Amino acid sequence: MTPFRIAQAQINCTVGDLTGNTEKICQSIQQARSLNADIVSFPELAITGYPPEDLVLKPQFIADNIDALQVIAAEAKGIVVIVGFVDKVNGLYNAAAILSQGKVRGAYHKHHLPNYGVFDEKRYFRSGRDLHIIEVNGVSVGLSICEDMWTQRGPTRVQTLAGATVIISINASPYQIGKLDERERMLRTRATRNQVIIAFNNMVGGQDELVFDGCSMVIDHEGRLLAKGKAFEEDLVVVDLDIQKVEEFRKQKQSRLHKSSPRTQSVTRILCSFEPYVGKRIKVLPKFGPTLTILDEIYQALCLGIYDYVHKNGFSKVAIGLSGGIDSALTAALAVDALGSRQVLGVFMPSRYTSCESRFDVESLVHNLNINLRTISIEEAYTAVLNMLSEEFQGTTPGTTEENLQARIRGDVLMALSNKFGWLVLSTGNKSEMSVGYVTLYGDMAGGLSVLKDVPKTMVYNLARFRNEIASNAMIPEHTIHRDPTAELRDDQKDQDVLPPYAILDQILEAYVEGNHAMSEIVSMGFDASTVGQVGRMVDECEYKRRQAPVGIKITSCALGRDRRMPVTNRYQET
Amino acid sequence: MTPFRIAQAQINCTVGDLTGNTEKICQSIQQARSLNADIVSFPELAITGYPPEDLVLKPQFIADNIDALQVIAAEAKGIVVIVGFVDKVNGLYNAAAILSQGKVRGAYHKHHLPNYGVFDEKRYFRSGRDLHIIEVNGVSVGLSICEDMWTQRGPTRVQTLAGATVIISINASPYQIGKLDERERMLRTRATRNQVIIAFNNMVGGQDELVFDGCSMVIDHEGRLLAKGKAFEEDLVVVDLDIQKVEEFRKQKQSRLHKSSPRTQSVTRILCSFEPYVGKRIKVLPKFGPTLTILDEIYQALCLGIYDYVHKNGFSKVAIGLSGGIDSALTAALAVDALGSRQVLGVFMPSRYTSCESRFDVESLVHNLNINLRTISIEEAYTAVLNMLSEEFQGTTPGTTEENLQARIRGDVLMALSNKFGWLVLSTGNKSEMSVGYVTLYGDMAGGLSVLKDVPKTMVYNLARFRNEIASNAMIPEHTIHRDPTAELRDDQKDQDVLPPYAILDQILEAYVEGNHAMSEIVSMGFDASTVGQVGRMVDECEYKRRQAPVGIKITSCALGRDRRMPVTNRYQET
Repeated sequence: MTPFRIAQAQINCTVGDLTGNTEKICQSIQQARSLNADIVSFPELAITGYPPEDLVLKPQFIADNIDALQVIAAEAKGIVVIVGFVDKVNGLYNAAAILSQGKVRGAYHKHHLPNYGVFDEKRYFRSGRDLHIIEVNGVSVGLSICEDMWTQRGPTRVQTLAGATVIISINASPYQIGKLDERERMLRTRATRNQVIIAFNNMVGGQDELVFDGCSMVIDHEGRLLAKGKAFEEDLVVVDLDIQKVEEFRKQKQSRLHKSSPRTQSVTRILCSFEPYVGKRIKVLPKFGPTLTILDEIYQALCLGIYDYVHKNGFSKVAIGLSGGIDSALTAALAVDALGSRQVLGVFMPSRYTSCESRFDVESLVHNLNINLRTISIEEAYTAVLNMLSEEFQGTTPGTTEENLQARIRGDVLMALSNKFGWLVLSTGNKSEMSVGYVTLYGDMAGGLSVLKDVPKTMVYNLARFRNEIASNAMIPEHTIHRDPTAELRDDQKDQDVLPPYAILDQILEAYVEGNHAMSEIVSMGFDASTVGQVGRMVDECEYKRRQAPVGIKITSCALGRDRRMPVTNRYQET
Repeated sequence: MTPFRIAQAQINCTVGDLTGNTEKICQSIQQARSLNADIVSFPELAITGYPPEDLVLKPQFIADNIDALQVIAAEAKGIVVIVGFVDKVNGLYNAAAILSQGKVRGAYHKHHLPNYGVFDEKRYFRSGRDLHIIEVNGVSVGLSICEDMWTQRGPTRVQTLAGATVIISINASPYQIGKLDERERMLRTRATRNQVIIAFNNMVGGQDELVFDGCSMVIDHEGRLLAKGKAFEEDLVVVDLDIQKVEEFRKQKQSRLHKSSPRTQSVTRILCSFEPYVGKRIKVLPKFGPTLTILDEIYQALCLGIYDYVHKNGFSKVAIGLSGGIDSALTAALAVDALGSRQVLGVFMPSRYTSCESRFDVESLVHNLNINLRTISIEEAYTAVLNMLSEEFQGTTPGTTEENLQARIRGDVLMALSNKFGWLVLSTGNKSEMSVGYVTLYGDMAGGLSVLKDVPKTMVYNLARFRNEIASNAMIPEHTIHRDPTAELRDDQKDQDVLPPYAILDQILEAYVEGNHAMSEIVSMGFDASTVGQVGRMVDECEYKRRQAPVGIKITSCALGRDRRMPVTNRYQET
């Protein structure tokens, strides 16, 4: 029996770019057909990009997305195509179109709509009820969209019981630390429990705060990985499936599969067979994308997040304020790795409080990364503003106000360079600072993309060391890594004057922000009660700053963006 | 027969302030009891405040809210109390607790969860299935929460068919233009269709971008308004209901009520009767809050939004950059009406481009409003920054960059005053500007609250004229109202150099932003195609600015906040 050849197009779509996404999809169809695949799948909402958010509320956008589907359908000849789009049938559905012989043959509607974390799908879509099995050249293929697969008694169960030997699951599953392993484990469980081959097709690319990691996978009925797409890159994963083996395996184990009763949903069968390919097919070897370390994963996620945010928004160059500290150094290294050193401009903006070591560290960094540097002292403007305010401020003690002013003048300078030359400003604050508000609104927070917004300070250090190890030299100056963190907004300032040590702070923050633990619970984990109280209050009190922060790249289970929707006006104090 | 006396506590809750809200609720219970009411109701989620957003994801917050409910239950003696809280029973529910004889007797769970516009209730809550009818001193009362009432075949229908003669509907229904009328019409329809008395108890107060207008109402079974609470103020609405009349009316019309079959849901009956009051009750006369004009409504909504944002966030004074233009003048007038003139500081920050007329208009305004003024020229800082950047900018033509710099220096000055003296900065940009991006990020956009963010420019003029009419003098200088709008960031600049006339712009924006109409549809409404295209592109391209904007007060059907969730990275262009 000729093996059943499936292709998974792990493509990088752009939200709203119906024309560009359609072209990309058509090219992949041609490529998959040239490899004689029986079927090719595309990610969830590949036509619109994911998440399209409120674009979905524009009727014209929906109509245009359906027009795009027709263009793609015309290309679906000699191959069956599964592609994500927004379907409109008495309401909107997150759907997988079934295309064959140049026509739209049907559409599966996502059943389980995520409406937690960064997801808002119930804002836009209705839940599907029907189940689809398509018959492609003698093989029964079930369809599923993202969240559907995460439910044990979801569509996969019913489709399998109705005879599907392969499930094609199309996804836009965003990266977060630990997700790759979790996903693979879940898919193995789902495949073995249902004795079915699962072809998990993920999206790849950055979209605002989300990064889709790709890592599409095919897992067989016994939980073996048959192929894996690249991480954080486009890919076309082609695999030959031995369907007979699945059928035989099932015959032996028949009893196990029918233990639980399926949900009573109608299964729609769609015959999609076409003139099968008769000649000798080009042989394909299954690919196995690399397994990455956590730091490598994060680093690549951040690079892809930068690259796509910059390019998809029409920029090519970025400007970064370099302070000599580790946050801006890591941001610059990431930007160079993402965009190339010629696309990155460092801006050093010293003041009276800037130390020689900072200047020296900036110079080494710029040398190591081979980027251009502009040095613009802020002294003249700082003095001018202090003069302007001297009457108002008479008799007051210099403090946070004066510190913030320096940060804001630096923000003004970066934005002026951005306005004048079209460079996107990358802001450099880390998650620890953003959580407790140890940042200046309109100052160091200014920018188009906040690269480390979801990276805790301790992980900033780990990523810097990781980058140096790869380079096998100190790309990020060792001195930058080892010096005490300081904002240099007054003499002898150290972060630890007002914050607990980052090793402690980050653990408390993880428990409080990601874990939603009560302060009392965190204290019982072994942290000092007054420290926990202080950190909790700091987090709660600076929601107004985060509300005005740039988009940042999500890498944890709870980023400070769409993931966390806290009221600004909030008087909650644990009783 | 003694009339059935119901009280509706239209209170102003603060999100997260479990202690404060509980105190307020207990005080209202005492007040209602002293008036011998049989039952007193409170708004939706009165204990937590609305919307509590991700506070609901903190298990400790839920536990604390249930503790607060117990405190309130202890107060519920000699009266039945209906109060909104978050219930936890295998998941979370937006619930109405039924309290009597010092105990929690049960809880109705909201059936219909809004998950559109500003609402995210499916993110947090499960849908209720049960229906409750409480028997209070011989009267059958059905319960309902906000959205439930908007559905024709919702809980009201079933409860009425099961014998309820009164429905208590608790709400946190935010203000928007036209909503008051729409709500009253809907309630009349629901009351007459079901031959039932509806007691609609709304929240009042500002919470971030939302303003709850109050306007609680009691409407009888024939659609007559029996009482109406104040608009934009706390109130206790007490009404005596003639239940016998409803029963007699129903007997006559029996046939009509049973035409349609109810949904098959279980009705839970809870007996809440208590020792009835035997003496002569204090007579209460039904109140009828005033019917406001649209401009009056909007003006009051903005004032309440300012007052509550400022006070609930722990501020008392505000600073406003005054330019001599109408936006900052109206913002200042609103702030004075909301907070009092001693709480408002005007800051005039002239540059080389500031005209004499602007200075004169600022001085008249400050005089009329009786507020303090600081004048801080930005020239010194502007010159300094230009000097600092002169090398970088050599050979370039002055333009937007230099204009933005002026706005950003003004932002820096306002924020410095805020940091130093603890004044909240109110930003002054209107919806038209915010929509098309005719604002400077970190410049005139800087601030804690963006008062006119949802007020189109044409309505800014209408509100200014309205304010002057009330004052019966030109509170806002006539010259400010009549001069051509200008940002004064270069010589002879006029808004209309780059924008269509506001009368045109605002109509296009309403169709595009609020109506989600396609550009082609807007053109077919009679607007110039190139203007529509230009406006649409401007709106789409500046999403990144709006993402970093302060919270603004919602007054339209689609404010530029939680209401409108557009991707920043978005290549959609209508095909």
